[in-house]
Amino acid sequence: MDWNATAPLLPEAREAFLSALDAVGNPSSVHGEGRAVRGMIESARRDVAALCGAQPSSVTFTSGATEAANMVLTPDFRMGRTPLKLGKLYVSAIEHPAVRVGGRFAREDVCEVPVTSGGVVDCVALETLLSAHDRQQGLPMVAVMLANNETGIVQPIAEVSAIVRAHGGLLVVDAVQAAGRLPLSIENLGADFLIVSSHKIGGPKGAGAVVARGEVMMPAPLIRGGGQEKGHRSGTENAPALVGFGAAARVAAENLEARTTAIAALRDRLEAEMLESAPDVVIHGRDAPRIANTSFFTLPGLKAETGQIAFDLEGVALSAGSACSSGKVGQSHVLTAMGYDPRQGALRLSIGASTTQAEIERCAAVFVKVASRRRSTGQAA
Amino acid sequence: MDWNATAPLLPEAREAFLSALDAVGNPSSVHGEGRAVRGMIESARRDVAALCGAQPSSVTFTSGATEAANMVLTPDFRMGRTPLKLGKLYVSAIEHPAVRVGGRFAREDVCEVPVTSGGVVDCVALETLLSAHDRQQGLPMVAVMLANNETGIVQPIAEVSAIVRAHGGLLVVDAVQAAGRLPLSIENLGADFLIVSSHKIGGPKGAGAVVARGEVMMPAPLIRGGGQEKGHRSGTENAPALVGFGAAARVAAENLEARTTAIAALRDRLEAEMLESAPDVVIHGRDAPRIANTSFFTLPGLKAETGQIAFDLEGVALSAGSACSSGKVGQSHVLTAMGYDPRQGALRLSIGASTTQAEIERCAAVFVKVASRRRSTGQAA
Repeated sequence: MDWNATAPLLPEAREAFLSALDAVGNPSSVHGEGRAVRGMIESARRDVAALCGAQPSSVTFTSGATEAANMVLTPDFRMGRTPLKLGKLYVSAIEHPAVRVGGRFAREDVCEVPVTSGGVVDCVALETLLSAHDRQQGLPMVAVMLANNETGIVQPIAEVSAIVRAHGGLLVVDAVQAAGRLPLSIENLGADFLIVSSHKIGGPKGAGAVVARGEVMMPAPLIRGGGQEKGHRSGTENAPALVGFGAAARVAAENLEARTTAIAALRDRLEAEMLESAPDVVIHGRDAPRIANTSFFTLPGLKAETGQIAFDLEGVALSAGSACSSGKVGQSHVLTAMGYDPRQGALRLSIGASTTQAEIERCAAVFVKVASRRRSTGQAA
Repeated sequence: MDWNATAPLLPEAREAFLSALDAVGNPSSVHGEGRAVRGMIESARRDVAALCGAQPSSVTFTSGATEAANMVLTPDFRMGRTPLKLGKLYVSAIEHPAVRVGGRFAREDVCEVPVTSGGVVDCVALETLLSAHDRQQGLPMVAVMLANNETGIVQPIAEVSAIVRAHGGLLVVDAVQAAGRLPLSIENLGADFLIVSSHKIGGPKGAGAVVARGEVMMPAPLIRGGGQEKGHRSGTENAPALVGFGAAARVAAENLEARTTAIAALRDRLEAEMLESAPDVVIHGRDAPRIANTSFFTLPGLKAETGQIAFDLEGVALSAGSACSSGKVGQSHVLTAMGYDPRQGALRLSIGASTTQAEIERCAAVFVKVASRRRSTGQAA
């Protein structure tokens, strides 16, 4: 029940991964072994590009989404070989920490864009911020995620893109939680860069990508050395992880509608049972467009940490906020940004394609138990 | 015959890797699944620390050695929470490109330390450079590898360390090619930081580490976000790769002497046959202390690229220089630094623990064929 932290490895990804694991060879070596591995990586690049509606040549592989965010969020850009300085970074208040800390931008050059109480980025505020942006400092960069990792709420990227375009800025969209759950097209979204992750879509850990709209405007490399990935990201390619990522991207792009409909039915049933047994439960973003797999809720009178432990003891793994850092249960910056009191917290249930009816029933039963125990021990406020 | 580019995955590493692959869970999640993965990672950290004679708490995992180099080679350090600026970076002329480009140091702050014609760093030149270093700019950082990836020549790190200490500098030692081939002790080497790689010692790709002498003085993080690795390196840990890395580190630390003696015997036999069939072959660094597995040679009259293709056609994979970048065969900066004409180039044979007698014989036979064809086609100068 914690798929947004990491999804189980798909059988297809596992198989592809293992096939590459046994292929000896450094993909940068020119001998036969090296060339075979190179071919597998380029095939994976086509699959990831297809998932994002982009050209394969615009996909730069990284070790994961956090590295990808640190790579693309930088004031140091290049138009071909010509350096181009960006001015400030504008990030929504509900971005993942990997985006929110602002990559290579100086702290004072990172501005937060507020969100509404409904959990969507405040486009009026964005427009105001960009109108006040000093273009002498360099173009503005804006980072807004497509689907939030805690609430699952889908952000109005088309509207954001129109505002960014009008101000001549660059738009970075963290599509980590949206990939495989919403149709992705860098062109339709109007984004300049997408960030995607392998292990969040059922691929192996250790792979991610920066997907660009074109090839001309690119960030200065974060990791330099041997010149792999056309110089955008050096280091021996993690071929097995990339090949597994490619396989997961293929699966993620297939049967998207049927899969999300089935997942939404499970999630909606779970939420219906939650509301029935505890009518005071607050399901955050229930009326907003959400990805189909996520339910983020607050049970009044139950602290999120207590609730997480209670579910864990009953064998249900869920999350209090995101799994952003080592064993730390912090206050949710997403709840705070939405205007809720973050001290109470909220719990996140997130499911996926292999979640079963039985697991949903089990989870609902545990919910009923935890919610009723809360009342009987007088924890309710 | 190209182990220095990437070593085959060890059975022990493969098994450990697969066991972690099937463990679902984000190691930063506090639920049971997350905690199980966390335990596996911490065990791997102890194994990598033991390989380097360091404390587990001083090991920061990265996605590989190139990322590790980019992390540690930076002017932005911290003593605990206090920022500390370093001045210049002094790198030996034979460093791997990942080190040689200087990480986050500005280009003008990276100085090259020459090497002798024998392929070892010129300590007199280093002393002169550090004597002229302006400490007002910040302390000097020096990077010298323990064993060169092309020649296999072992560098005089103890001597280098004494010079760096005398000037109050920091010493970074790239131990990528030395790990598992020479005893490693950060204390005995007198290094402040070691860089190690998983796939070069028979572990999976996608893992590496920065190993520090202590915990207080650390580089500003290269990849920021969720705060994993005590904030030194954010991003979901690639648990399977790290667990496989740990297993490979255990193997690398075991039976070091017996293993290297056996490997040296194979390499020396190969070189004897090479010298017998082509007495004009130049084996670079043959009289210098070398790691046991590497042979770097020039056949007069045979261009390295031509030689590599000839070996490849006979089914022997070797390297013309290092496998540093996508399919590119560049001129060896190591040969240049040693004062050789780099246009002719050199070929690198590198072997490992599972290289067989039969493979050595096959390689020797191909060498004889390639060397004699060179004469018969009149390629000799």
